[in-house]
Amino acid sequence: MQNLFTDVPERLDEECFEAILENSAVTVERIVSKGHRSPASGWYDQDRDEWVVVLQGRAVLAFEQGADMTLAPGDHVVIPAHRRHRVAWTDPDVTTIWLAVHY
Amino acid sequence: MQNLFTDVPERLDEECFEAILENSAVTVERIVSKGHRSPASGWYDQDRDEWVVVLQGRAVLAFEQGADMTLAPGDHVVIPAHRRHRVAWTDPDVTTIWLAVHY
Repeated sequence: MQNLFTDVPERLDEECFEAILENSAVTVERIVSKGHRSPASGWYDQDRDEWVVVLQGRAVLAFEQGADMTLAPGDHVVIPAHRRHRVAWTDPDVTTIWLAVHY
Repeated sequence: MQNLFTDVPERLDEECFEAILENSAVTVERIVSKGHRSPASGWYDQDRDEWVVVLQGRAVLAFEQGADMTLAPGDHVVIPAHRRHRVAWTDPDVTTIWLAVHY
């Protein structure tokens, strides 16, 4: 048994992505952020749909088209494939823990 | 945008299962329990693997073979297809919120 809220890296120089389960159809990953945002250079443009939830902390998702979304614990959203998005902000004081399902 | 921790039914006469996303390859569901356990009559025996996490509350999973597992918030476990299991206990005082990925 593992725990999503513990086993968090002590130093978070970079955002931390960790696959919890992965097969040909689906990937579940935990993302740990603390003040990180996506590289300014571009957008995520993914081949698969993604369902993402913030479990702890707070984050802002930005989209190439459409309004920003502020996510608090429990907030979840589907990001369809090829909807270009980035993480514009994560809480600098609290570790933000996300769960993402790519399918 | 929806929230996993809110929009919880006020009355929970029965355990509440709600599909968050569903396609041919994967189902993500939220389960809300409060003192519920599986029917005494039998075991869950599922055709697909299941990854399950407790996000709030507390629960005990029992297995036909192997020791019980007590899950606190963040605890997650894979239940392989056809590993017979049941929910032996959930916290009667706090709403237990689970997330399950069937894949």
